[in-house]
Amino acid sequence: MPAKPKMRLRSHAPSQDESLTVERYLMYRSNVANRILDAAAALFRKHGFANVRMQDIGLAVGLSKAGLYHHCPSKEELLADIVRLCGELLTIQLLSVQALSASPKEKLKAFVVSRMETIASHQDFFTVIWQERPFINRSDFTDIAKRAEAYRGGVRQIIKEAKNAGEISASVDPHLLMLALDGMTGWAYLWYRGSGEDNPTQIGRAFWDYISQGILK
Amino acid sequence: MPAKPKMRLRSHAPSQDESLTVERYLMYRSNVANRILDAAAALFRKHGFANVRMQDIGLAVGLSKAGLYHHCPSKEELLADIVRLCGELLTIQLLSVQALSASPKEKLKAFVVSRMETIASHQDFFTVIWQERPFINRSDFTDIAKRAEAYRGGVRQIIKEAKNAGEISASVDPHLLMLALDGMTGWAYLWYRGSGEDNPTQIGRAFWDYISQGILK
Repeated sequence: MPAKPKMRLRSHAPSQDESLTVERYLMYRSNVANRILDAAAALFRKHGFANVRMQDIGLAVGLSKAGLYHHCPSKEELLADIVRLCGELLTIQLLSVQALSASPKEKLKAFVVSRMETIASHQDFFTVIWQERPFINRSDFTDIAKRAEAYRGGVRQIIKEAKNAGEISASVDPHLLMLALDGMTGWAYLWYRGSGEDNPTQIGRAFWDYISQGILK
Repeated sequence: MPAKPKMRLRSHAPSQDESLTVERYLMYRSNVANRILDAAAALFRKHGFANVRMQDIGLAVGLSKAGLYHHCPSKEELLADIVRLCGELLTIQLLSVQALSASPKEKLKAFVVSRMETIASHQDFFTVIWQERPFINRSDFTDIAKRAEAYRGGVRQIIKEAKNAGEISASVDPHLLMLALDGMTGWAYLWYRGSGEDNPTQIGRAFWDYISQGILK
């Protein structure tokens, strides 16, 4: 069997000052650390994590080997940053839905639309985390499973509230509906092209129309 | 940039007698070649293609290195077989739906249910082809893209027929609905566990109920 990888993916953020957060990432989009991360994600997505070398990443951002290592010690650390950012992006997406002053039904619609938007906005990142599951699962990155379960639990909870409010049919299974919504939007990581006719908001709204109203006449 | 891999994934089947087909695979499930393929798929799924060695596969099926190489020359060939079988499995699934003497609406329901069943029955295979996209895309395996487009086109066609028959709302976009159905079922490769309460047929029917009738009261 392949040995467990030697490096530890950072399973908790270092001190507040150093940690990469979505806020920092989005605020300093053009700084070199973020450009490295974006380039790494694009390369991992296209070639697979195992097939990308640090020098490929350096080349993509115009940094020498020394220059690149000054900013990041290894590609495993870059993958860990991508995993952490994806987790935080989805948490923020769910929190923004939960915080709405709206009916559970409206929250579910907002969930579908904002999940499409979030995945499409950071498609390289999300492709990497779903594509590189074996590698990520092997690593000491225990937060991921917990975070994913919390996310799914949050969605189930909104569905249950919609059922309790009588907005959703009693026959709907909250777990199965959560999986259906998760999948119809999550699958976009494979097919979404920014060049298409519809933007992610429009696609999310169409998906919500189909599943909320039903497609049959 | 990483170099293009040296091996060619077989882009067309060899002569009829040697080629691995779904029929042969299912008929001789317990023969050694198929056991090798199943073991390889399970290992690729769990550890990632790049992290599995031929000797891991040999170990899993109790074959020496020489014994294993007698049956298959490389793990790239095994991946090529997995890709080919997945393509054929989905083609068979779509053809079986198209062949039904039923209304387009009933065909769409059968499509959702049989896609869930097919993915769940061969989850290792499908996980590998979706997980290993960068590797598969880099290879000279030109049939894949064409086959995938034919599959999607076939689903869109059934949706269009359902619209023309007045069974489905005129506002439904056939391409977006195809993507929604594809995703809600395809995503199961990530979450399906045989141990759950519902079997794939029941899950597929529930998904169809949600999207056909709508979840709102």
